[in-house]
Amino acid sequence: MFYTDGKLQHPVRVEKPDPRFAHALQQAIGGVEGEIRVAMQYFFQACGARGNPKFRDLLMNTAAEELGHIEMLATAVALNMEAAPLTEKEAMAADPVNGMVMNGFNMKNLLSAGLSAMPVDSDGVPFDMSHVYASGNIAADMTANIAAESTGRTLAVRLYNMTNDPGMKDMLSYLIARDTMHQNQWMAALEELGGAEGAFPIPNSFPQEDEKREFSYAFLGFQADGTPPVSGRWSEGRSIDGKGDFTSVPLSPMGPKPNLGPAKPGSGAQSEQM
Amino acid sequence: MFYTDGKLQHPVRVEKPDPRFAHALQQAIGGVEGEIRVAMQYFFQACGARGNPKFRDLLMNTAAEELGHIEMLATAVALNMEAAPLTEKEAMAADPVNGMVMNGFNMKNLLSAGLSAMPVDSDGVPFDMSHVYASGNIAADMTANIAAESTGRTLAVRLYNMTNDPGMKDMLSYLIARDTMHQNQWMAALEELGGAEGAFPIPNSFPQEDEKREFSYAFLGFQADGTPPVSGRWSEGRSIDGKGDFTSVPLSPMGPKPNLGPAKPGSGAQSEQM
Amino acid sequence: MFYTDGKLQHPVRVEKPDPRFAHALQQAIGGVEGEIRVAMQYFFQACGARGNPKFRDLLMNTAAEELGHIEMLATAVALNMEAAPLTEKEAMAADPVNGMVMNGFNMKNLLSAGLSAMPVDSDGVPFDMSHVYASGNIAADMTANIAAESTGRTLAVRLYNMTNDPGMKDMLSYLIARDTMHQNQWMAALEELGGAEGAFPIPNSFPQEDEKREFSYAFLGFQADGTPPVSGRWSEGRSIDGKGDFTSVPLSPMGPKPNLGPAKPGSGAQSEQM
Amino acid sequence: MFYTDGKLQHPVRVEKPDPRFAHALQQAIGGVEGEIRVAMQYFFQACGARGNPKFRDLLMNTAAEELGHIEMLATAVALNMEAAPLTEKEAMAADPVNGMVMNGFNMKNLLSAGLSAMPVDSDGVPFDMSHVYASGNIAADMTANIAAESTGRTLAVRLYNMTNDPGMKDMLSYLIARDTMHQNQWMAALEELGGAEGAFPIPNSFPQEDEKREFSYAFLGFQADGTPPVSGRWSEGRSIDGKGDFTSVPLSPMGPKPNLGPAKPGSGAQSEQM
Amino acid sequence: MFYTDGKLQHPVRVEKPDPRFAHALQQAIGGVEGEIRVAMQYFFQACGARGNPKFRDLLMNTAAEELGHIEMLATAVALNMEAAPLTEKEAMAADPVNGMVMNGFNMKNLLSAGLSAMPVDSDGVPFDMSHVYASGNIAADMTANIAAESTGRTLAVRLYNMTNDPGMKDMLSYLIARDTMHQNQWMAALEELGGAEGAFPIPNSFPQEDEKREFSYAFLGFQADGTPPVSGRWSEGRSIDGKGDFTSVPLSPMGPKPNLGPAKPGSGAQSEQM
Amino acid sequence: MFYTDGKLQHPVRVEKPDPRFAHALQQAIGGVEGEIRVAMQYFFQACGARGNPKFRDLLMNTAAEELGHIEMLATAVALNMEAAPLTEKEAMAADPVNGMVMNGFNMKNLLSAGLSAMPVDSDGVPFDMSHVYASGNIAADMTANIAAESTGRTLAVRLYNMTNDPGMKDMLSYLIARDTMHQNQWMAALEELGGAEGAFPIPNSFPQEDEKREFSYAFLGFQADGTPPVSGRWSEGRSIDGKGDFTSVPLSPMGPKPNLGPAKPGSGAQSEQM
Repeated sequence: MFYTDGKLQHPVRVEKPDPRFAHALQQAIGGVEGEIRVAMQYFFQACGARGNPKFRDLLMNTAAEELGHIEMLATAVALNMEAAPLTEKEAMAADPVNGMVMNGFNMKNLLSAGLSAMPVDSDGVPFDMSHVYASGNIAADMTANIAAESTGRTLAVRLYNMTNDPGMKDMLSYLIARDTMHQNQWMAALEELGGAEGAFPIPNSFPQEDEKREFSYAFLGFQADGTPPVSGRWSEGRSIDGKGDFTSVPLSPMGPKPNLGPAKPGSGAQSEQM
Repeated sequence: MFYTDGKLQHPVRVEKPDPRFAHALQQAIGGVEGEIRVAMQYFFQACGARGNPKFRDLLMNTAAEELGHIEMLATAVALNMEAAPLTEKEAMAADPVNGMVMNGFNMKNLLSAGLSAMPVDSDGVPFDMSHVYASGNIAADMTANIAAESTGRTLAVRLYNMTNDPGMKDMLSYLIARDTMHQNQWMAALEELGGAEGAFPIPNSFPQEDEKREFSYAFLGFQADGTPPVSGRWSEGRSIDGKGDFTSVPLSPMGPKPNLGPAKPGSGAQSEQM
Repeated sequence: MFYTDGKLQHPVRVEKPDPRFAHALQQAIGGVEGEIRVAMQYFFQACGARGNPKFRDLLMNTAAEELGHIEMLATAVALNMEAAPLTEKEAMAADPVNGMVMNGFNMKNLLSAGLSAMPVDSDGVPFDMSHVYASGNIAADMTANIAAESTGRTLAVRLYNMTNDPGMKDMLSYLIARDTMHQNQWMAALEELGGAEGAFPIPNSFPQEDEKREFSYAFLGFQADGTPPVSGRWSEGRSIDGKGDFTSVPLSPMGPKPNLGPAKPGSGAQSEQM
Repeated sequence: MFYTDGKLQHPVRVEKPDPRFAHALQQAIGGVEGEIRVAMQYFFQACGARGNPKFRDLLMNTAAEELGHIEMLATAVALNMEAAPLTEKEAMAADPVNGMVMNGFNMKNLLSAGLSAMPVDSDGVPFDMSHVYASGNIAADMTANIAAESTGRTLAVRLYNMTNDPGMKDMLSYLIARDTMHQNQWMAALEELGGAEGAFPIPNSFPQEDEKREFSYAFLGFQADGTPPVSGRWSEGRSIDGKGDFTSVPLSPMGPKPNLGPAKPGSGAQSEQM
Repeated sequence: MFYTDGKLQHPVRVEKPDPRFAHALQQAIGGVEGEIRVAMQYFFQACGARGNPKFRDLLMNTAAEELGHIEMLATAVALNMEAAPLTEKEAMAADPVNGMVMNGFNMKNLLSAGLSAMPVDSDGVPFDMSHVYASGNIAADMTANIAAESTGRTLAVRLYNMTNDPGMKDMLSYLIARDTMHQNQWMAALEELGGAEGAFPIPNSFPQEDEKREFSYAFLGFQADGTPPVSGRWSEGRSIDGKGDFTSVPLSPMGPKPNLGPAKPGSGAQSEQM
Repeated sequence: MFYTDGKLQHPVRVEKPDPRFAHALQQAIGGVEGEIRVAMQYFFQACGARGNPKFRDLLMNTAAEELGHIEMLATAVALNMEAAPLTEKEAMAADPVNGMVMNGFNMKNLLSAGLSAMPVDSDGVPFDMSHVYASGNIAADMTANIAAESTGRTLAVRLYNMTNDPGMKDMLSYLIARDTMHQNQWMAALEELGGAEGAFPIPNSFPQEDEKREFSYAFLGFQADGTPPVSGRWSEGRSIDGKGDFTSVPLSPMGPKPNLGPAKPGSGAQSEQM
């Protein structure tokens, strides 16, 4: 279960409210790289973690941390929105030439939320929980978490570059540091699960003799002229999971053109299809 | 640009059509772990790949492969749906006790698609392109790809376990092998980009002196009673990216309760908020 | 069944077309607080209204009214879009400094709809019918309607404040008045259903002896330090439904850490989880 | 910020695992009436609460409670899923007549989540955060919360009726009690904000002289034959907000057929429209 | 504006309630081929119809008709749901062997809607208004309407085949007839707009000399081996719009491999990309 | 299966990068009228094509073409985004008056994609695969394709008008030509399937004696005052499918007000409904 003290994990300070930056910050709340996603992803992974209970604890702990990050960012959005003009008069005061009352910030932050944050991305698209990857395979979950923190830190860096506000830079430098830790944390958990040679191919519980092994370590080429595909670490040497050797071959079709035959009577097709 | 020969990459054979397995196979087409996702993800990553052009080639090549996988699976769904009853009479013939004409298969495969495949998951939820992660950071993209192939192979294994049809097992053992390769392939690409110590923290172009380094390698605890969080590889030793040492500390709030102050007149709030 | 005369319920006049205001008006059409939502919500509630048929009549009647409101707003959007520039030349004429042909209005209103209204919100996000709350419980439906008209009138007020166009202010002052009525109308219907003491807790058909009554009127605290939660009308005195007395207590966990045990063989988990 | 102890707010016990009931329980997690919705709704309302800070505290406190409810339900889903067959052999054992390995439970709980809970509803549709109503108007927020708890308790009652499992009935009787409290709690908060006569029409900060008052308390009829609409508390007597008297009148169109005129050259219309 | 009399356009009768057929009928309400879609599509096309006002009248008239079809189908769903079991006891009575209380019907129709219809498809996926095609080009709109009625009638035929209930067959034979008319009606409107030679290529207001005419009537082949694509009416003879002659040619790439160059510093890419 | 050569179907050249035009171009990638939609639509229609195999070949061939169009447009977006400012300093350089770093382009193209294209529309709304119409009826599919190419060409024309960049005009004049061909191509295919008199009403496999033929060619009026609906080609003369004669009549309700009766005990309704 969860508890709160209503306080902020890290101070949130806005020196010069900027509704346009509020607009951008929404991506870090409700974007697919954002904090709702990681909070809910770690939460659901924890709830479904079978096996060694320490992974449940690890995940639920970090879910609690990420909830606090949403809170920080939502506060930052609200503080930045304070400067949004509500009337054409205010808009003209802010921008005498064009009076663009409705430009540059996400209008829903005003119209739907009254100058507050919303669980949407920087285009006002609501976050969709299908981005919560919780696969029931603890190693697959770790790869999803590394990916989430990698795109998350990339986003935070872009936001950091975008603003000159010292308060906002301060908050973001904290969040970027946490993303550094979380990338490392999930890689460390993957190492505990066996690392590249122990955990892969995921799931490692499937007997590899049941897969078509002649294709398990072959880099297949689909070049229109049949030339070999681009070479690299993926086309020669020992495979990363240590269980095979990379090769590289152009692929030709092994199956014929599929033919589904005529449509069934009564299936709603045209007569010509039957 | 793309070309086709209309043939199948690998044979698709169904010995005993099973509409309920068609239902499950849809997850491998339009689920978030499915083939549309990887095809489109590699495609868009290729289109946005800046820097060394070999990564564009690598990605676009594999996008072409994955398009062929969608084609295989869509054929498998249509062949399995052949046995779906269209009328109550057919349903009674298939299931004399209950005549459950509408049970057990995804009805949209009949009602919307006339016994064919659709770009939806196993619950009939259409695939949503926000799952195409293409971040503009080539290393972050590789982590997203490893994650996609890890959940993808996990899904394929579950489907393999679910069916007894030799044709379907044959097809899935090919797809599972390809997922093995693709997990290795993207890890190999990440190795070319520097591996754990060279590529991380992602993006590696951000100067770490601009992040709050005292939090960059600290495993923070959010236990309600202030006890230390669960220990593991993530709480001690050298960090995986080789740029710090893990520590472990409970966190207390560093910021106060946020106070947004009164609402602005004209903002549509209640009078009591102003 | 429905009929139309193609006329407008109330005049719609735009003195100075403003594509940016069209942008904002879209929220009142396709936003979650908008007119499509209430029209469809009352329609589906009517279709599912069991019991006294007068509620079906009440709901279907107001559904018809709201359809006319969508029509008014769609007309307002189209009239405001007339001033949108179609070419860079027109854009330069409208804004000689920046020639921002594509700023400030929702581009889809041009690109997808040819300067007309769409069933989308002010960020171009299409309306999603899951916002049609029709629960099969007539009292619960009334609470959803009061909520819809409360956020609806709040939105209309924000739009009213945003524009200086006398025609638009005239139209909005009509819609705001209707929202006043509808808030009252649904509260009146709830009063007919027994009001706070007769209708609540919703559903009132569930025997309260089957709920854990020691928690039915207790304001539970989840403060991290175990202090009591914030006090107010909700923490003391008779409950609003007249069926209990409010108390206030901090809650401690009553259940242990959940343990799902090992993963099943064949479930696609890692070997370490089994 | 948030804290956790990893324990359950209330015990979760499943005597006879039932994958089909897991299917139904998903509605209470990721349905629009479910726990993710209220947890996130109270959270975002708290983050945007301007004015008296006690409402922020009230909302964030209850957000913490609801997070614990998601955790309980996710555990219940995972425990019920334990009985789901993974192979046709297991399916035949469970149902010798039909061997319906894939019927009756939400297949994504297996295919995507490995027998665990997901943030989706009972049809596998992912929760969409646009259902988080946080309007920036504290009274409108309270109406949304009363509505959410009314449909939420209705759902919990339906689930309670559906199961015979004593453990599940025990858990649900707790959740139903909490919904009773929360309905009362938000009505109490609305009472603190002035109740029907003080808070309505929402927002109460808009001067009613700016709305078209002749329509503010009139129940308008849209009967095709012009007869008066159904009468009730809404058509006579003092309005519920105490600021007018209900009347009832059929409405005729006040505006003409709208005419948008010809399409602009270059707007992509047909020549005949120009 | 709209009016109602609360009556049904055509009688709706269910002789033997069948919750599983309710499930299927939902596709005709909230599926992409369903009635909400056409009602709203014609409504929005009407609202945006510029040029000859008779098209606005035509569209708004048929929008009113389709609203009545939703009402009929919603009634049919509610009547069919009457037989859904609410408890395990009822389920055992209905199906003594398996007691599958939750199989075969869309559970949300019970859990969310209390045995009533919802604006969702046969898998419980809510209708999404992006399917309302209203392009601002009246001829393009007609093509979208012909398509909608073609898939709509196909769906209705599949439902007709699926049921044995005389009442349901009666209702569907009415709806199928209306779809026949509507296919013809929109083709007739397209004929008024000039038919194949007058209206096409849509939009006909674009000067064809501004398109690359060497590609305007060429059937391009993308066969992997460069052989000509499949021949047919599309590869020879006068074009259907009467403005060119069909030819058939394999296409080779006209552009090079794209090269976006290095990533910009500060763009969040990896250092290796810069 | 699919092949690629990584080259562009047609050259893509941007003379003066314009992030705001990138914003608009996104509609042609991920909008409902865009290239992802047609590529995937033709692909899935091909996979489900029963009957004469030449339609499968036709559809898969054109799917390959459209994949190349997405690639062209994604390249165009990335090239146009090169001019987007990343920092406030760059923004001030680009727009000294306002420094609007975040205006006028879709921020997600920077924040999520690092100056690259995304599978979203011009408002950043992700493409949703439910727009892939593949009905299992080959004639219905052709009507959907004509509609898709009609709105697609309308969109391309609007984009063409919007830009002055010679490179972009060149690319669009190619795409517009292809849309001309594709409109004609699908009309040609429909002609092969029998044209208006042979293919309609779709599906032509349903015996028309099973529909209520008195309504099959009647233009029904829903005017509130019972006057006849607007006359035109649709109200008199031979029907377009050649199987009936158009008539025109006002419709009165044929069914009563629906009455669902009382709610079932245990269904979660209010007591008053039972």
